[in-house]
Amino acid sequence: MLRRFDSLLLILDLTGIVVFALEGAMAAIVAGIDIFGVMVLAFATALGGGIVRDVLIGETPPASLRDWRYPCAAFVAGGLAFLFFSVARQLPPLLLTTLDAAGLALFAIAGTEKALDKGISGFVAVLLGTITGVGGGTIRDVLLMQIPAVLRVDVYATAALAGSAAMAVGIRLGLPRWAASALALVLCFGLRMIAVAEHWNLPRLTVS
Amino acid sequence: MLRRFDSLLLILDLTGIVVFALEGAMAAIVAGIDIFGVMVLAFATALGGGIVRDVLIGETPPASLRDWRYPCAAFVAGGLAFLFFSVARQLPPLLLTTLDAAGLALFAIAGTEKALDKGISGFVAVLLGTITGVGGGTIRDVLLMQIPAVLRVDVYATAALAGSAAMAVGIRLGLPRWAASALALVLCFGLRMIAVAEHWNLPRLTVS
Amino acid sequence: MLRRFDSLLLILDLTGIVVFALEGAMAAIVAGIDIFGVMVLAFATALGGGIVRDVLIGETPPASLRDWRYPCAAFVAGGLAFLFFSVARQLPPLLLTTLDAAGLALFAIAGTEKALDKGISGFVAVLLGTITGVGGGTIRDVLLMQIPAVLRVDVYATAALAGSAAMAVGIRLGLPRWAASALALVLCFGLRMIAVAEHWNLPRLTVS
Repeated sequence: MLRRFDSLLLILDLTGIVVFALEGAMAAIVAGIDIFGVMVLAFATALGGGIVRDVLIGETPPASLRDWRYPCAAFVAGGLAFLFFSVARQLPPLLLTTLDAAGLALFAIAGTEKALDKGISGFVAVLLGTITGVGGGTIRDVLLMQIPAVLRVDVYATAALAGSAAMAVGIRLGLPRWAASALALVLCFGLRMIAVAEHWNLPRLTVS
Repeated sequence: MLRRFDSLLLILDLTGIVVFALEGAMAAIVAGIDIFGVMVLAFATALGGGIVRDVLIGETPPASLRDWRYPCAAFVAGGLAFLFFSVARQLPPLLLTTLDAAGLALFAIAGTEKALDKGISGFVAVLLGTITGVGGGTIRDVLLMQIPAVLRVDVYATAALAGSAAMAVGIRLGLPRWAASALALVLCFGLRMIAVAEHWNLPRLTVS
Repeated sequence: MLRRFDSLLLILDLTGIVVFALEGAMAAIVAGIDIFGVMVLAFATALGGGIVRDVLIGETPPASLRDWRYPCAAFVAGGLAFLFFSVARQLPPLLLTTLDAAGLALFAIAGTEKALDKGISGFVAVLLGTITGVGGGTIRDVLLMQIPAVLRVDVYATAALAGSAAMAVGIRLGLPRWAASALALVLCFGLRMIAVAEHWNLPRLTVS
């Protein structure tokens, strides 16, 4: 049972990496960047959040640099995005949004779990989970000279934060790990999808 | 006596965090960013410099992620800036400049002291102190797609460098820690304030 | 023999730092930045790549912060660029390109070697070598609000990657270290210079 759960986690992790790498690669292609730069952005978008988290919790080299499957998954996804861009760009936006919300939820919850495992306090583990979810996209946006999505897009990092918090609270309440993960994933994913569907906005001030 | 000095240091540290968080939050609000992004920038501006320093000296997780009071102080300051923005923006610019100079001095000197405590050589401790002082603002500017203040603003990082150097020299000369700290704080703060008042400029070349 | 080889390595390392620091300083001067900012960019360009690599492999404080000769070399080069800018800007572009290609090769191969020494797998050591080569320039470009060269310039990071890979393969095949280094340096340097001379471009997609 445990082993099956671990395999499931690996598959979910690799899925998140592939989704984020595809997004990073497509952003690079749209910006007119060459194939090598596309690979750089696929790598940075998919693995940047986890690398920042691992550096912050002192786990070096970061997991995604110790296990060759992680960078490989990112590069393969980047290459596929380049080869089949004419197909990829015709995917319905809703599919992309859905995949992205799934990747965000997977990364945020996995990041929170890993921080808790290292004995980091719940409050900070939630921050680290959020960083894991949004870090890669932030690095991608900075490299492409855009204000990061985490500052622009409503209810994006908020969803990651909510999922991370649910995970930390669930573990604290003694829920089994799979139950806490499942609840947190559903919360983060659902919040993000509903926010998109309903055009939710967070409050902001108008400065005259 | 020691305990009283430690409490004083904590208060000074939290003061610096609150000041920098307010600045980060106000920059975000002016840029039209939502409440969550305001909190992100408050956090990054207030704690970014110290986090970079701690990662560089290998103290992970960074102090500001191990002690929940630090992120809390940043978030509370960010929230207050959002709630009372119409008041905050009417504060006289000189007050903001003064608070910022105080925060810069506190962070630079505390960063130098921490690096020296870890047995790092004086020359490098001065660099790390300067990074502690200007790092948070640099991250804020990069996220908001602005050329960082450290490259634009005259006698800003220079003041942090001077204060850090004074701290390192004072400790090397055998001054008591509180005396070296006080001298260095006054030097950094004074240099920055005089530079603002006198419109000091560092030399730059005109490229035709 | 070994000692002579070590001295050679130190000289090559410092040469790479001086070249990259000059480039960073000149980019800052052209952008109209004051003398302190020029030093910041000289430091970041010359030492940024190695610092990121050391943080990622968990060697903190990074080598270039433990040995005062490295930052000193960067600052001296930055100061010279400022003092003699009118001379430096008249250097033939081909000389600058040649020096830059040499610096890129030196940093990438030294970075790969260091990662292999820490017991990191070949695939990841190649990534870390590439990051060492292009990291400093990337930080410089982000601070100056430009899309990083690694995403814009054809066959730049590619050359670093090829050199790093040649180094890792050579070591794996049991070549003596000096032979593997020499081959990898020639490959990276040659690839970059030929790409410039022949105006090689990597494939990119046109998005209508």
